[in-house]
Amino acid sequence: MYESYWQKKGDETTVVIPGWQFMSYFSDATRLCWFLEPEFAKQIVRLHNVVGNAVTENRHIVVGTGSTQLFQAALYALSPCAEAEPISVVSAAPYYSSYPLITDCLKSRLYKWAGDARSFSKNGPYIELVTSPNNPDGFARRSVVNGSEGILIHDLAYYWPQYTPISSPANYDLMLFTVSKSTGHAGMRIGWALVKDEDVARKMTKYIEINTIGVSKDSQVRAAKVLKVISDNSEGPNEGDSFFEFSYRVMAKRWKQLREAVQQSGLFSVSDFPPQLCMFLNRVFEPQPAFAWIKCEGDIEDCESFLRGKKILTRGGKHFGVNPKYVRISMLDRDKNYETFVRRLSTIRS
Amino acid sequence: MYESYWQKKGDETTVVIPGWQFMSYFSDATRLCWFLEPEFAKQIVRLHNVVGNAVTENRHIVVGTGSTQLFQAALYALSPCAEAEPISVVSAAPYYSSYPLITDCLKSRLYKWAGDARSFSKNGPYIELVTSPNNPDGFARRSVVNGSEGILIHDLAYYWPQYTPISSPANYDLMLFTVSKSTGHAGMRIGWALVKDEDVARKMTKYIEINTIGVSKDSQVRAAKVLKVISDNSEGPNEGDSFFEFSYRVMAKRWKQLREAVQQSGLFSVSDFPPQLCMFLNRVFEPQPAFAWIKCEGDIEDCESFLRGKKILTRGGKHFGVNPKYVRISMLDRDKNYETFVRRLSTIRS
Repeated sequence: MYESYWQKKGDETTVVIPGWQFMSYFSDATRLCWFLEPEFAKQIVRLHNVVGNAVTENRHIVVGTGSTQLFQAALYALSPCAEAEPISVVSAAPYYSSYPLITDCLKSRLYKWAGDARSFSKNGPYIELVTSPNNPDGFARRSVVNGSEGILIHDLAYYWPQYTPISSPANYDLMLFTVSKSTGHAGMRIGWALVKDEDVARKMTKYIEINTIGVSKDSQVRAAKVLKVISDNSEGPNEGDSFFEFSYRVMAKRWKQLREAVQQSGLFSVSDFPPQLCMFLNRVFEPQPAFAWIKCEGDIEDCESFLRGKKILTRGGKHFGVNPKYVRISMLDRDKNYETFVRRLSTIRS
Repeated sequence: MYESYWQKKGDETTVVIPGWQFMSYFSDATRLCWFLEPEFAKQIVRLHNVVGNAVTENRHIVVGTGSTQLFQAALYALSPCAEAEPISVVSAAPYYSSYPLITDCLKSRLYKWAGDARSFSKNGPYIELVTSPNNPDGFARRSVVNGSEGILIHDLAYYWPQYTPISSPANYDLMLFTVSKSTGHAGMRIGWALVKDEDVARKMTKYIEINTIGVSKDSQVRAAKVLKVISDNSEGPNEGDSFFEFSYRVMAKRWKQLREAVQQSGLFSVSDFPPQLCMFLNRVFEPQPAFAWIKCEGDIEDCESFLRGKKILTRGGKHFGVNPKYVRISMLDRDKNYETFVRRLSTIRS
């Protein structure tokens, strides 16, 4: 979906890397996160300040090979070392389907997946993942477990103005972001964490050192350039042509099409979201999430199989810890694929 | 050390990446390793064929964020799922100091570090890491445990003609390589595995999907270009100016300087290596490893501390599972730093 915007921008975001540059493991040996490219760090701070979606003051930046690696770095950093039992990791259902897979992949004795945060009642320390806006259902979220020993990880991959109104700068202890959802450059495998506690940031850096000895310099350099162009265009005279204006309009159009298709079919439902003022776009709008979270109404029990029969590929509710009447569909596919999807959806009758 | 070569090459290895390219998670969805760039795969096969250091026929290529990630992917893929106890991971001392750290980082119930392969005598399955030429001591190696249920991982990061004579193409089940040691581009974080068994290659790919959802496209594209230039120059009319000729000469010079410094000082010893015919350079020479493995002779027990006092930074033997009379020093530092090191070493007296 974002490809056409970057094509239009032409050379502005092109990077040129000579063979002899960025050869070292190190970016800045004096920094806590020694493999973070200084220019990328600068552009992260700038973009958050321009958009107003996260507090960057008194935060350490840790770069990761996507936010997926940073999530694991956070688990490593936040798990108590001396405990006999692994710490429980929870998230309110429906939750991102990869969380349980990643958490339990290596059967770690440091942490283990403990399912839906809403039904979690164990005493003692735990880690709660708060994805806001949430993947898959798009709702803004807060932590739901009310334990005194909870440690929170905020996954803010979708807290950008094309998806949801930016009401205020997020101000949490550990926040995760990624270029794949903000700018569309999934192939770069670049994410970043804003971390308040120095010791946690240090341990996250240690994990990434052990896991991959740092993060691709080439992708950091390219990500820095893309973020810079976004900030430049958001502030400049051609504001109307800015990346977030473009992507906001595409998402608005797609959500309109989706709601019309759902209505035409009559077999499905999607949530309504309360409109809110976006401080960045200076406009009131309803959230328009990166995924549609669709419920099959009526007798259909397995919506994923049902839609597969109609040539629509989705991911069923059970992957997200809820019932199979729900499915998740990406709203970020290329224009042509998206058009095909809404056309097919609109013609389905019970 | 390699920087000056790539500077001299100028634009030949420069990459230009427009903002709208390589945005997707996918490189080739039809491939087993779906995030491997086809051009990079092609250049890997070509370079191995040019150099003759590894068999690529009937192998699956898995790309990783450095060979460090591929080592973890291999542990994940090779660990039996149904065992009650973690599988033992061993390597003959002195072994690469990161192996124990990486293996035990998350306290996995799938595998655990079990130390020096030479003293391993447990029955049942185990994983043995064979690094050849070995880090830290530079010797060519074979597996040492003689169990019937051993699974081998061959780390061939240093099996390139600047470090050791290429006697024949390596032909093992699972072989790891990395650009950081072959071309000097550590900052790219790119490695690759050549894997015989399809199921193992599939599980390794799965691990990398869970760990980082693939590998930076930008770095794969850049690595493809660098490998291409190396192959082109090795085969072309300017063979004498090839990357491996250049790096062979630098290593030969540095090892000569090192042996002279060791002799002048009289306090240290380094191993001699048997000369062998290199089929690629068509020349008989002694291995000239990427690390010097130095022993303090005489009364000095802690060679790392002793040398730190002489302003020489090394890594002591205990990190590699042996006694502290040994230290490892990189032979790949920039020219100026290397000159300083040999000068300092040569003047040390007991």
